[in-house]
Amino acid sequence: MASRGRRYGVTIAVDAMGGDHAPDEVIKGASDAAAEGAGVVLVGPEDVVRERMQILNVDLPVHHAPSVIGMDDAVSTSMYRQRSSLRVAVDLVAREEAGAAVSAGNSAAIMAIAIHVLGRQPGIDRPAFGGPMPSGHGRTFVLDIGANAAVKPNNLVQFAIMGEAYVQVCHGIEVPRIALLSNGSEPTKGTKVIKEAYEHLAKLDLNFVGNVEGNMVFDGAADVVVCDGFSGNVLLKTAEGVAGEIFHLMKNEIEKDFVARVASAALIPVFQRIRRRVDYQEVGGVPVLGVDGVVINCHGRSQALAIKNAILQAEKMAGEHLVERIGENLHHESAESGRRRRLARALHLRATTP
Amino acid sequence: MASRGRRYGVTIAVDAMGGDHAPDEVIKGASDAAAEGAGVVLVGPEDVVRERMQILNVDLPVHHAPSVIGMDDAVSTSMYRQRSSLRVAVDLVAREEAGAAVSAGNSAAIMAIAIHVLGRQPGIDRPAFGGPMPSGHGRTFVLDIGANAAVKPNNLVQFAIMGEAYVQVCHGIEVPRIALLSNGSEPTKGTKVIKEAYEHLAKLDLNFVGNVEGNMVFDGAADVVVCDGFSGNVLLKTAEGVAGEIFHLMKNEIEKDFVARVASAALIPVFQRIRRRVDYQEVGGVPVLGVDGVVINCHGRSQALAIKNAILQAEKMAGEHLVERIGENLHHESAESGRRRRLARALHLRATTP
Repeated sequence: MASRGRRYGVTIAVDAMGGDHAPDEVIKGASDAAAEGAGVVLVGPEDVVRERMQILNVDLPVHHAPSVIGMDDAVSTSMYRQRSSLRVAVDLVAREEAGAAVSAGNSAAIMAIAIHVLGRQPGIDRPAFGGPMPSGHGRTFVLDIGANAAVKPNNLVQFAIMGEAYVQVCHGIEVPRIALLSNGSEPTKGTKVIKEAYEHLAKLDLNFVGNVEGNMVFDGAADVVVCDGFSGNVLLKTAEGVAGEIFHLMKNEIEKDFVARVASAALIPVFQRIRRRVDYQEVGGVPVLGVDGVVINCHGRSQALAIKNAILQAEKMAGEHLVERIGENLHHESAESGRRRRLARALHLRATTP
Repeated sequence: MASRGRRYGVTIAVDAMGGDHAPDEVIKGASDAAAEGAGVVLVGPEDVVRERMQILNVDLPVHHAPSVIGMDDAVSTSMYRQRSSLRVAVDLVAREEAGAAVSAGNSAAIMAIAIHVLGRQPGIDRPAFGGPMPSGHGRTFVLDIGANAAVKPNNLVQFAIMGEAYVQVCHGIEVPRIALLSNGSEPTKGTKVIKEAYEHLAKLDLNFVGNVEGNMVFDGAADVVVCDGFSGNVLLKTAEGVAGEIFHLMKNEIEKDFVARVASAALIPVFQRIRRRVDYQEVGGVPVLGVDGVVINCHGRSQALAIKNAILQAEKMAGEHLVERIGENLHHESAESGRRRRLARALHLRATTP
């Protein structure tokens, strides 16, 4: 049915109808990914997708799904829509007809459908959204960036183990530095939940480097930063807001000043390189971690570039067996000699406060 | 003892020994503020302060305080040090010998001493640190930015009322837009605490505009943004980190490129104006709100400019009777006809979860 990717022999099911610029930008992004050797199948209403492909001069396999989940649809609505492009894309992963699903649609619906259709992977209580953020020395992977507004310490411990595996597989860092987001670097900083998570993380076999504050996420102090989904969202949105505001100010200030306007022409490539470093489209999408399969959620505003990068990222996650790697890391931590009881506590801990 | 400010007839007690660049930068900042008409008294070991003043060619009144609280001293230690420059500065406020205290010292010690010496103001359960953040259209005042890692809904409601008064007095906005920081703009977003606070804020007489996400803090969507001290710290530090990282990247990229290096010379004034817009030193300090007196904490790295701005800000807060204004706003909300019972609930609410 779908063309198989050359690198890993996996096919990525792409929700052709998800996102503000679907289906055109999704089709273009999928076509660009296929041109780079990825195996893709577009999922959506066959007539619509084929018509747009013809106009865009793209030829890719299509898997029919008659309905669509809107960006503002309630999660409950999206769960009932069993033949939506998003649902069918994830179903293909569950049936092992695809190695991963990619969608720029409704985040809450993607998380709910991923959990419902694929199930949580053993040892994970709460799946999370992971965010690769640009940082001074590469990328810092932050999770959870929005799925769980409130967490317990054991959730944070599991996020750390999932983040470790993601960075090992996708960023090629064998012993990543794992940190906990807090309001100070001392172990005594943070809420009760953070302090308990700190204690447990310090006992694990992973390379836990302690607490970091928001600024340290961007100076490359850690490879993985663990937090609840509320703080993760604050971090992500603040970063977007500040970057946007600085570029906006810069544009305004340059336009006010004739000499600056002339000189700035010479700086266009510099500004472009910087924009590219901080642009979410370059980063790809936000993986759903902790479900039994690979699913990536792209930004709703994604254009072809973001879709292409997310497909290549999904191909790597599936091809390099990320889900299995998370399982192995969980197993390693709980089997680590002499630590068994301690870790069992950490992983199944009942917190006294939410 | 101290020279009285011309504008408001208030004197600001300045902790000469607080901060990384004390006493020299503090003395210079105090001298600059005095030159602009502020009444100041420097608090610290008289011999040290007078010696440095002589070298710096500054002549200001000094109030003797023999000891100093270090940046890393525990709060408990600082509480015992009753003759420290910080403690004595706050004592002057309590004894009404000064209208406000300014210190670039240890934040935790400042909050603890302010609460201990001045007491909470009636109607406020938890004082907060307020942060004026640069935003697209002026400043957004965010609180709490670090004093209370976990809060209850009534704390957030009180923060909103304190923030309203601060912005009325210090930013001159009579009907400020008040928002709640959340992980989405819908009322259903956020933790249990946020959702409860939303409900109560919606019932008050203040101009509550709903939830905002981190990015909206910087695009001027609200004049006051209310949050717990953990999220507030994440927001503040992320903003600092991203801004720093962008300027750092820009410098690196420009240095790599000869044409850009030459052209960038013409852009120096533009870069300086932008830096100035996002520089905490221009903003002044972080007020302690909810205690019965005016206290401002400056960034530990403050230099003369930040100290001067904080002194002018403190003068305004004291001279325009901020504490009384907070009291009036609290009273107005609880006296507002037909709302009495509802508000009593909001202000003394017992939350079911922390």
